[in-house]
Amino acid sequence: MLLFADNGFQATGMADIVAGSGLSAGAVYRYFRSKDELIAAIVDRVLGEVAARYDELLAQEPVPDLADAVQTALEAVTTFAEKGPVDTTRIAVQAWAEALRNPAVHAVADKAYRTIRGYFGQVTRRAQEAGRIDPDADTEQLAAALFSLVLGYLLQRLLLGDVPTPDYSAAVRVLLGAGGSVR
Amino acid sequence: MLLFADNGFQATGMADIVAGSGLSAGAVYRYFRSKDELIAAIVDRVLGEVAARYDELLAQEPVPDLADAVQTALEAVTTFAEKGPVDTTRIAVQAWAEALRNPAVHAVADKAYRTIRGYFGQVTRRAQEAGRIDPDADTEQLAAALFSLVLGYLLQRLLLGDVPTPDYSAAVRVLLGAGGSVR
Repeated sequence: MLLFADNGFQATGMADIVAGSGLSAGAVYRYFRSKDELIAAIVDRVLGEVAARYDELLAQEPVPDLADAVQTALEAVTTFAEKGPVDTTRIAVQAWAEALRNPAVHAVADKAYRTIRGYFGQVTRRAQEAGRIDPDADTEQLAAALFSLVLGYLLQRLLLGDVPTPDYSAAVRVLLGAGGSVR
Repeated sequence: MLLFADNGFQATGMADIVAGSGLSAGAVYRYFRSKDELIAAIVDRVLGEVAARYDELLAQEPVPDLADAVQTALEAVTTFAEKGPVDTTRIAVQAWAEALRNPAVHAVADKAYRTIRGYFGQVTRRAQEAGRIDPDADTEQLAAALFSLVLGYLLQRLLLGDVPTPDYSAAVRVLLGAGGSVR
């Protein structure tokens, strides 16, 4: 993760990973036969933590606000960025670039992002069922737009560095309407 | 642009660019002394087209809706993606990854994104002055959130391929409130 976050996927070879791990090549290759398998393992770990947060959020009654769903994801991004030893969100940006040219990484990213976006889909459909969103609105596209608020946050945090989570989160809440109701 | 879009920045060398251009090395190097200068030139061209669209939008009276401002940017993304000969939005994702490890590319991306986000800042401040946004809301963070709707669209279009511009744009309009008023 340290090597991927610092140098990206292309500039990191399995030899660098073996050297950095302090293990023998045989030990590393027993668990990960390729960089693609390592990338998949990193994504699985991140997804597991995101899933735990959303399981908790989605169990809430009444239906969570859309803004709460976004905030949960923003807090996950901040946690992954700051908990060390490496800013995992840097790996996400490297993975996006790699996914455009590497089908194995694309498959992993596709699955992960559909899973996370699916949480926004669930929140959106529940808000629609509760009469808080226009019944004709396309919940899949609403979920995509909510997910964008997270992806764009992750990127602007890294590239521009001027989106403190509480301030950005408050702006999201203003955009989505005070109570998260958009009707 | 073709080489950057297909292979990213790291895997593309000046020698590849010279070979692909059909020009002599001397001719290419007369205009671009490095890959970083080429990247800057691509970004400048894109920014020029975006600026033209926003100059038009921002000249509108009454104040443009927030959703209109987002839609203008979404249409720009679609145009850059589809007008050929290369999907320029793929270069954007490569540039994000490269910016995290290359200070010259970071400087170019930083300037470009602050410029584009600045358009959202102008629209947001005018909407606030017109009493359509909470006077206490932080317009810089609102602009960042609106910009996220565009960055996330660009990325989901490439990685997931299931966000048709009109459908996504309609969802943005629902999220931001029918008239673009968020109050």
